[in-house]
Amino acid sequence: MSLLVVGSVALDTVITPHGELKEGVGGSAVYFSVASSLFSPVHLVGVVGKDFPEEHIDKLETRGIDIDGLYVAGGKTFRWHGRYGEDFTDPETLLTELNVFADFSPDLPEKYRDIPFVFLGNIHPQLQLQVLDQMQSPSLIAADTMNYWIENDMDALMEVIKQIDMLVINELEVRLLTGKRSILAGAEKIQTMGPATIVVKRGAYGAFAMTGDHFFVLPAYPTQNVIDPTGAGDSFAGGLMGYIAEKGKISPENLRMGIVYGTLIGSFCIEGFSIKKLEEITPEQVNKRLDHFRSITCF
Amino acid sequence: MSLLVVGSVALDTVITPHGELKEGVGGSAVYFSVASSLFSPVHLVGVVGKDFPEEHIDKLETRGIDIDGLYVAGGKTFRWHGRYGEDFTDPETLLTELNVFADFSPDLPEKYRDIPFVFLGNIHPQLQLQVLDQMQSPSLIAADTMNYWIENDMDALMEVIKQIDMLVINELEVRLLTGKRSILAGAEKIQTMGPATIVVKRGAYGAFAMTGDHFFVLPAYPTQNVIDPTGAGDSFAGGLMGYIAEKGKISPENLRMGIVYGTLIGSFCIEGFSIKKLEEITPEQVNKRLDHFRSITCF
Repeated sequence: MSLLVVGSVALDTVITPHGELKEGVGGSAVYFSVASSLFSPVHLVGVVGKDFPEEHIDKLETRGIDIDGLYVAGGKTFRWHGRYGEDFTDPETLLTELNVFADFSPDLPEKYRDIPFVFLGNIHPQLQLQVLDQMQSPSLIAADTMNYWIENDMDALMEVIKQIDMLVINELEVRLLTGKRSILAGAEKIQTMGPATIVVKRGAYGAFAMTGDHFFVLPAYPTQNVIDPTGAGDSFAGGLMGYIAEKGKISPENLRMGIVYGTLIGSFCIEGFSIKKLEEITPEQVNKRLDHFRSITCF
Repeated sequence: MSLLVVGSVALDTVITPHGELKEGVGGSAVYFSVASSLFSPVHLVGVVGKDFPEEHIDKLETRGIDIDGLYVAGGKTFRWHGRYGEDFTDPETLLTELNVFADFSPDLPEKYRDIPFVFLGNIHPQLQLQVLDQMQSPSLIAADTMNYWIENDMDALMEVIKQIDMLVINELEVRLLTGKRSILAGAEKIQTMGPATIVVKRGAYGAFAMTGDHFFVLPAYPTQNVIDPTGAGDSFAGGLMGYIAEKGKISPENLRMGIVYGTLIGSFCIEGFSIKKLEEITPEQVNKRLDHFRSITCF
């Protein structure tokens, strides 16, 4: 079944111990849609400036991603510059230029409004609500957020959380959102705020998920070939949601395998700058890594 | 097969958000031996002072732990006081009194010298070497260490590492020991220093292991009922080594299941102060948790 994603589309300049990429295509909607397009038809909502290179548009279209909802506004594309240290954890942000993203007001193409699976990438919660208002009772709504919105627009964010079925969030955000030091207790508390399903991203340590009373936990797929961690979380969410959309519904078993595939897609993402590696991988490579992952994890 | 452990025997005073325990029995050799005694006969080497309560000795003997190598020296027992915060990570050390442990010089009972499985708990690497010198070609030698020895007696520690088959170590120690920021790359580098098997403890995030070309990674067993994390790493090592000694040899498959059992025993350990929970658990409870762990982890 098809999948809608709303989020940022960016030009990222990234410095890592392996080198530098200037103005590569990035943003949550890009990583998510490229990742999820391995599994399901994806429809993207976002905004770029007139300076957004045609080649990047081509990359998305080559993946079969529907970009009728990608608006080209007068002005410059959202830019982010970041630098990663030797351990590839939290990057230092060198520059953030919102540009056209500052005035983004998503107005969905008519044909998008009955898409059954919706992912609200990390944008202002008011914009996430604006997207939801335009949708006709989707069967699954998932959302991401970030510490900035928790600290600066908790009311709108709580309204989003009330309306969604699945929250995809990291450990720091669980703590900020709930005030709980125990991540498990925090995730359970979020379930009482609305979403039946909570997926907690733990970076290099993997992820866990709760849906109703079901629980699932997974380490990260171990790769030594880390080139650029940017987009790992969005690729994880894209693999997860793409898999669930392909299956047509969320169930404990689909969530479990969605987390597995999300983990694998995230592991490929970080093995190249920007979306380079995501563009290259084939279903065969993903399934080969799935078999290897099972062999080093299950008992 | 039987197992020798050398390490600290302590009286721990621990403050956690759940309360305080004054002068509970602790120390690496205690946690390790209680944990491993669930699987294999254990022989302990350590030292206490004349103030060490008889009831703690009784607890060890009740578990079938051989304490002929536990020396009672003139003076006071090693004491540690620590306080854990809400997140139960690195405790604040409030007091460390080495007491009789400062002059510890392990002299093994004759009957200990042909024990096939040896675990060198976290003590001065010179003492770890002194124990090894007294052993008659054990079939598996494993060791733990800590940042203090890496920073203060690297030469002796490198000699230990050269002689052992398995190093059980945490992520910080991997980085300090190898200078590598990538834990995977660091673990591989340690393999070139001597031990074919490296087990990396990641606290609340689980553990991974390498043996030759084999790799295995596991998240921690999720428990919300954390009372006192003291001894989790030593209980993990005890479960791991106890299981391998029970099987009679290390193999990739035995290592894998050893890591699983170590993880489970560690998860029980933190559900009570001191060794309280470890003393209570039965093989049936461990196997029940094993089944649950598999159901939430494997795919």
